[in-house]
Amino acid sequence: MTDNPTDPLVIFTPSGKRGRFPVGTPILTAARQLGVDLDSVCGARGICSKCQITPSYGEFSKHGVTVRENALSEWNKVEERYKSKRGLIEGRRLGCQAQVQGDVVIDVPPESQVHKQVVRKRVEARDIHMDPATKLYYVEVAEPDMENPQGDLERLREALREQWSLDNVIGGLRTMQGLQKALRDGKWAATVAVYSGREGTPSRIMQVWPGYYEGSIYGVAFDVGSTTIACHLCDLITGDVKASSGLMNPQIRFGEDLMSRVSYSMMNPGGAAEMTVAVRGAVNSLIGQVAAEAMIATTDIVEGVFVGNPVMHHLLLGIDPIELGWAPFALATSDSMSLWAKEIDVSMHPDARLYILPCIAGHVGADAAAVVLSESPHLQDEMMLVVDVGTNAEIVLGNRNKMLACSSPTGPAFEGAQISSGQRAAPGAVERVRIDPATKEPRFQVIGCDHWSNEPAFDQVVGPAGVTGICGSGIIEAIAEMRMAGIVDEDGAIGSSEAVGTARLIEDERTWSYVMHDGRAGGGPLITITQLDVRNIQLAKAALYSGARLLMDKMEIEQVDRVVLAGAFGAHISPLHAMVLGMIPDCPLDKVSSAGNSAGTGARIALLNLASRREIEAVVRAIDKIETAVEPRFQEHFVSAIAIPHKTATYPNMDTHVTLPKVSFAQSGGTGEDGGRRRRRARG
Amino acid sequence: MTDNPTDPLVIFTPSGKRGRFPVGTPILTAARQLGVDLDSVCGARGICSKCQITPSYGEFSKHGVTVRENALSEWNKVEERYKSKRGLIEGRRLGCQAQVQGDVVIDVPPESQVHKQVVRKRVEARDIHMDPATKLYYVEVAEPDMENPQGDLERLREALREQWSLDNVIGGLRTMQGLQKALRDGKWAATVAVYSGREGTPSRIMQVWPGYYEGSIYGVAFDVGSTTIACHLCDLITGDVKASSGLMNPQIRFGEDLMSRVSYSMMNPGGAAEMTVAVRGAVNSLIGQVAAEAMIATTDIVEGVFVGNPVMHHLLLGIDPIELGWAPFALATSDSMSLWAKEIDVSMHPDARLYILPCIAGHVGADAAAVVLSESPHLQDEMMLVVDVGTNAEIVLGNRNKMLACSSPTGPAFEGAQISSGQRAAPGAVERVRIDPATKEPRFQVIGCDHWSNEPAFDQVVGPAGVTGICGSGIIEAIAEMRMAGIVDEDGAIGSSEAVGTARLIEDERTWSYVMHDGRAGGGPLITITQLDVRNIQLAKAALYSGARLLMDKMEIEQVDRVVLAGAFGAHISPLHAMVLGMIPDCPLDKVSSAGNSAGTGARIALLNLASRREIEAVVRAIDKIETAVEPRFQEHFVSAIAIPHKTATYPNMDTHVTLPKVSFAQSGGTGEDGGRRRRRARG
Repeated sequence: MTDNPTDPLVIFTPSGKRGRFPVGTPILTAARQLGVDLDSVCGARGICSKCQITPSYGEFSKHGVTVRENALSEWNKVEERYKSKRGLIEGRRLGCQAQVQGDVVIDVPPESQVHKQVVRKRVEARDIHMDPATKLYYVEVAEPDMENPQGDLERLREALREQWSLDNVIGGLRTMQGLQKALRDGKWAATVAVYSGREGTPSRIMQVWPGYYEGSIYGVAFDVGSTTIACHLCDLITGDVKASSGLMNPQIRFGEDLMSRVSYSMMNPGGAAEMTVAVRGAVNSLIGQVAAEAMIATTDIVEGVFVGNPVMHHLLLGIDPIELGWAPFALATSDSMSLWAKEIDVSMHPDARLYILPCIAGHVGADAAAVVLSESPHLQDEMMLVVDVGTNAEIVLGNRNKMLACSSPTGPAFEGAQISSGQRAAPGAVERVRIDPATKEPRFQVIGCDHWSNEPAFDQVVGPAGVTGICGSGIIEAIAEMRMAGIVDEDGAIGSSEAVGTARLIEDERTWSYVMHDGRAGGGPLITITQLDVRNIQLAKAALYSGARLLMDKMEIEQVDRVVLAGAFGAHISPLHAMVLGMIPDCPLDKVSSAGNSAGTGARIALLNLASRREIEAVVRAIDKIETAVEPRFQEHFVSAIAIPHKTATYPNMDTHVTLPKVSFAQSGGTGEDGGRRRRRARG
Repeated sequence: MTDNPTDPLVIFTPSGKRGRFPVGTPILTAARQLGVDLDSVCGARGICSKCQITPSYGEFSKHGVTVRENALSEWNKVEERYKSKRGLIEGRRLGCQAQVQGDVVIDVPPESQVHKQVVRKRVEARDIHMDPATKLYYVEVAEPDMENPQGDLERLREALREQWSLDNVIGGLRTMQGLQKALRDGKWAATVAVYSGREGTPSRIMQVWPGYYEGSIYGVAFDVGSTTIACHLCDLITGDVKASSGLMNPQIRFGEDLMSRVSYSMMNPGGAAEMTVAVRGAVNSLIGQVAAEAMIATTDIVEGVFVGNPVMHHLLLGIDPIELGWAPFALATSDSMSLWAKEIDVSMHPDARLYILPCIAGHVGADAAAVVLSESPHLQDEMMLVVDVGTNAEIVLGNRNKMLACSSPTGPAFEGAQISSGQRAAPGAVERVRIDPATKEPRFQVIGCDHWSNEPAFDQVVGPAGVTGICGSGIIEAIAEMRMAGIVDEDGAIGSSEAVGTARLIEDERTWSYVMHDGRAGGGPLITITQLDVRNIQLAKAALYSGARLLMDKMEIEQVDRVVLAGAFGAHISPLHAMVLGMIPDCPLDKVSSAGNSAGTGARIALLNLASRREIEAVVRAIDKIETAVEPRFQEHFVSAIAIPHKTATYPNMDTHVTLPKVSFAQSGGTGEDGGRRRRRARG
């Protein structure tokens, strides 16, 4: 860069950075001097084409410059060779070849930026800055020399230092075993994958390819839920998700919920080890699936990030979870972990590194930390409540100033267990319910059919025997609708008021049940909501609400600015019905959002952006952990949260008969905890 | 420590450190404040007894104090319990229990010092300061607490930080898997083995034992030679060698010398891998042997250090050595390496770390670096020449100001190969020779018998058929004695002068041979020194001498102050005969010493003292590597070094008929490169 006002002016868009450079300066050099984010893997050798730019010509009154046709040096042989071999979009130049000749405006297209953004679909979600721990570098290595008998590795390290300013790089044993051949095959040029973990620790050469490596490297982000294990395969250069897949957690055969798995370990010597083998097997199956789908080798996967609740976390790592089965719920380790994939028998690149997010507390795991990373309350002014419901609700409340977390024992009712007609989310399960307040007649949707039950097409597609039960999201809507229709009163009693006498109410041992669907004539089941079902949901929602309320007390606030429903629970639940039921504190409806599988997203962020790992570690350290079991106010809130006040007045624009956006099962396939869609429990 | 002159004065011996302390100060506290080297593993809890001290009573005019009987607090219950349970030498106290009451003189016995010295037998060798990478720490860990849901590992790390000032400690996965049980079994007290490698990198918890661990931890030092693999098992607390063992390198079946093994790899796909499996198998056998001898489990071995020449180094690590078979002899890596034992399939503690010393150059390996560490020319003013002879001679010259190294292609003659009656060192091999200058009659000793061949007992023990050949050290003495007796002339010709006509000379195709032993009548062999034998030794010694001479040129010196003969070669060779032959530059005979297996000793130093690893890495980086192949002066020196000038005048006190100290085979069993004692090569 110069101060000479007669030197050409170079202006970069979209950054707007500008400076004067002597005639002959390559655009890549100008970009680097100005701190413009322009990629290059090959170090300006015209090989990688990562530094593609688009010059603009003509008059730019906004910038006060006129760009002439000869503002850049002529199209050269390197560019011609590149274009003929691999193609180049019309108008593009290689930034390392095109040199400044006059004033010029240079556009850096998004794919030429080092720190590409991975744009997330949700408007309120932060984008992901690409900066993974493992990156590729193209180097030219000095040939060996008898007078200076350094090893090949040492000359490679010297090249990384000189050509890429990479200091403190070590080569593992496996690297060394193939290094000499790779360097000679590549005629002393090589592409090197370097893993840079925690600052201050050495970076590590993962792999050396002869010459310029045309391929990419990949990572996997795993959310290991009690019910479902979900995996995303990401390209570590572009950030693209190349494939996603999900599997039932095979540990289900040892116990449906977390505590039954902990019990299994307590009762059976070697039980924890069996469950460890099972979950690792599923992880390896998923890796095989996503690699096959993306048509890559599993050994091209050089990194993995795992999140999970504390019990899943321990079992994946081969740590017996029994201490998580009783107070004080001591974790073996709460901090984040870095380890070799082979240490937990995960089949990917033989030197692949894994990162496990930190756990927040004995009941608030690395999955909750991942949700925080994804939803980022710690970066916002708004006071955000993040709720992730499984057997336990994990609740985080906070903003950039303060963060609190707790877990609350909701039990499995929200997952469809302890519900008389409850079933796991599968075709035939009722998942959406509306009840006419006047007639008390219901209509509903089942998974696998877009029609409502009162539409003629419904019978053709589903038929009376095709309705098999109610899944978690269905039971919540059903009870909320029953409350709004006056079938359930404020105390949760069915049939105590004006609803008595409708044909939909049937008596069952001194309590009433509401008939949702009677398929018996066609060989199907009778599906009802019983008084006990309502009681179980009341207890569950009171636990959830009082956990959130306790955090609000600790935060000394009466109202939250935003509620995020995370996980499968959040993906399937109707925020409106959840609020009618009193599961979550009041909040304007447009400020309640479903974050989908945000634990999986958090894992993906940690995979694609190294700095986010340090970020979530710091946030987790700073979170105040509130233990509900020892807080007397939790019990007080719980008791007063059991009621279901009719709060229609709170939502003047509420129209429960508008069809809410439907999240189909297919869309959510392969996403984390399949909370609302659990298999119905055997009942005695 | 106080300035108050009325406070008691505490004087420590042997350090002489002194200071005044308030009444009631524990002796351990006083020692720490004064920087006196007093050990404690349990942190002053009266458990470990490492802080034993001996108070002295009475008048100490030297120190100007009188120590009364009540100078220390009374013998207490903790000391009584310790004494009754484990015994305590009479007069000893525990430094953490005994408190200052009056002026006192405290002796710190050697075993109570943290940085114990491991004293080496050779007068000129430096002692080893105990400061291994892995140490034991006794800690008391906070119990888990629901209000502060840190993991067990994090509370253990906190204890290490608070109680031992150990920062930046990480726990591996294996540690975590057993951590919760260990802490609970030990009632929140534990002994922790922590490995602290390179400064700035995290320390690592290797193992956690419940409560106070009574056992020790161990390390192995390996010298992987082309012929012999030697192993020392060391106690990492005391520094004692608990067991040593050696094995033939099983790679011998792939080729006797280094180059034939490199050729084997070139000719046979998978050949390098076969040799890797072979050497690792031998390493594991040796570990099994030394562990059994010391009656410990192999899993108690938490560290290993390996040295070896570059080809052995590469094959051990699983790196194909073919690049070492041709110019420019490129090493895969020249720097030191740290790796997991399991990475090279070595069976010890599952998290054991290995350290491999750096290589100096393509022909001057980690074994030569270990010799430098053991002999430490870089710490001395004297200009020291260190020579280690195998198929190549590795030569180091230097002092604290400058260090040079080269290798010289001596060929296998010194190892008994290319010699007509040569054989590997084994019972029956001639290893010592004296020739009467007047009669030209020889007398000799063979391995396995202490009598000379002219003593009557020799025939009874050995018999004429019991003399089977000449080993490496024998051939050197034979030719030097032949020269001094006038049987060989300055040019190396046999029988050219006054010796012609003795009965010991027989003609053999126009050249003469000297008969050392004729056992044919008794069914034994005829053992002669042929003209070709002399020529081969001349070429070998010229190569060795000219390498040393080249370094002296580079150093611009005419004379060295000290010559160290390293390795098995050095252990068996007679320095006087080597100098007569002109193998090494002239030097006063009392300044020529044999260092034994100094490569193995260097490995042991690196095992027991962490700082020595950084020391040898720095020294190796600073060594100027001289490549003999590209130095024209090497060739000049070589040509003029072929002659054998009779230099008796140089050594006025020389008496070649004094019996030199005999190094028996048994003593040297299991020491490194068995240079002088190689199996005789098949001759066509």
